[in-house]
Amino acid sequence: MKVYGYFRSSAAFRLRIAMNLKGLAYETELVNLQAGSQSSDAYRQINPQGRVPTLVDGDAVLVQSLAIIEYIDETHAQPPLLPGDALGRARVRGLANLIACDIHPLNNLAVLKYLTGTLGVSETQRDEWYRHWVKEGLDAVEAMLAASPDTGTYCHGDTPGLADICLVPQIFNAQRFDCPLGGNPTVMRVFDACMALRAFDDAQPSKQPEAANIIG
Amino acid sequence: MKVYGYFRSSAAFRLRIAMNLKGLAYETELVNLQAGSQSSDAYRQINPQGRVPTLVDGDAVLVQSLAIIEYIDETHAQPPLLPGDALGRARVRGLANLIACDIHPLNNLAVLKYLTGTLGVSETQRDEWYRHWVKEGLDAVEAMLAASPDTGTYCHGDTPGLADICLVPQIFNAQRFDCPLGGNPTVMRVFDACMALRAFDDAQPSKQPEAANIIG
Repeated sequence: MKVYGYFRSSAAFRLRIAMNLKGLAYETELVNLQAGSQSSDAYRQINPQGRVPTLVDGDAVLVQSLAIIEYIDETHAQPPLLPGDALGRARVRGLANLIACDIHPLNNLAVLKYLTGTLGVSETQRDEWYRHWVKEGLDAVEAMLAASPDTGTYCHGDTPGLADICLVPQIFNAQRFDCPLGGNPTVMRVFDACMALRAFDDAQPSKQPEAANIIG
Repeated sequence: MKVYGYFRSSAAFRLRIAMNLKGLAYETELVNLQAGSQSSDAYRQINPQGRVPTLVDGDAVLVQSLAIIEYIDETHAQPPLLPGDALGRARVRGLANLIACDIHPLNNLAVLKYLTGTLGVSETQRDEWYRHWVKEGLDAVEAMLAASPDTGTYCHGDTPGLADICLVPQIFNAQRFDCPLGGNPTVMRVFDACMALRAFDDAQPSKQPEAANIIG
């Protein structure tokens, strides 16, 4: 399998965690979002949306991180990334989608560039926008985690899964934009538990090979 | 089952289509987004995020439209809303997530209000923002549909499913904001095929009981 990704992309980060949890080896192809490589004709041929990650598995080309992770979970059963019961799966997918649909898309690079570039919003306003959606979303995640007996060491019970896979990259982003996280103690407890695992730690942006070159 | 929804919400519209396709009866509870009912303490007790839809099934309370629809699909098998093979499911979920994560969240009511209210963006700029993300997303959907032999009468083969459920409400939104759709012939062909089905037609905003009162 081959994964097109970028160290700072939350969506690519999610997939790295999932691949690590499953213990799957894969080739990596860098798509430099900062340099605009996602908009090249060559990459658009692979992923018409020009986003990362893309998974190539044999002849199949898959897009959208959550769809890819569900595919990986269906085709490589152990360890499962979703609970065994329908209600549990709905809870985990609900948490994952809350983050993947209602926080992350508002704060990705393309949106931030539109705000400051096309709309002429100041950097301060852009950062307030960022923190607004992070706070609104993570406060809801906090309420859902804190209220439920299904919350364990991780978002759902005592094994990491799809909700944790979405939560951890979102916290990295929040920290990068100095979002206050003191009001989210359950979220941060789960985050810390995840980051104590190699599958999560090895997937973090600063540990990817391109990080040194692109930051430097 | 009981569904908390609102006629104009794309996410609630998705769930209405899914319930209709499955032939499931349910109680409806109106959450008037225009009047701010989603932020009431009573509703936040049910859905901490203050969004619609919410599904109540016995003691269980489920949030996030895609998570709820997957639950409905798992607990009411016929007709299936996802293909029988893992690659097909990944394709359908990819299309669904492209719409649900990368188009819709940028254009929902809360975001539009933030743009004009907090950021002081003009209505013209707000509408350009809207059309920008619709065009970018639907052009990618068009490319994916047009290029694939898996596309049939509907997004995937000749039975409607999760991708169609996400596509149709997005087209309604696009039309409401006068987005040009002439460059998306495959998308519009699928849209028309869906709208010829009662499950989709009956779910459209103007046919919900609250539509007359709130628009009027």
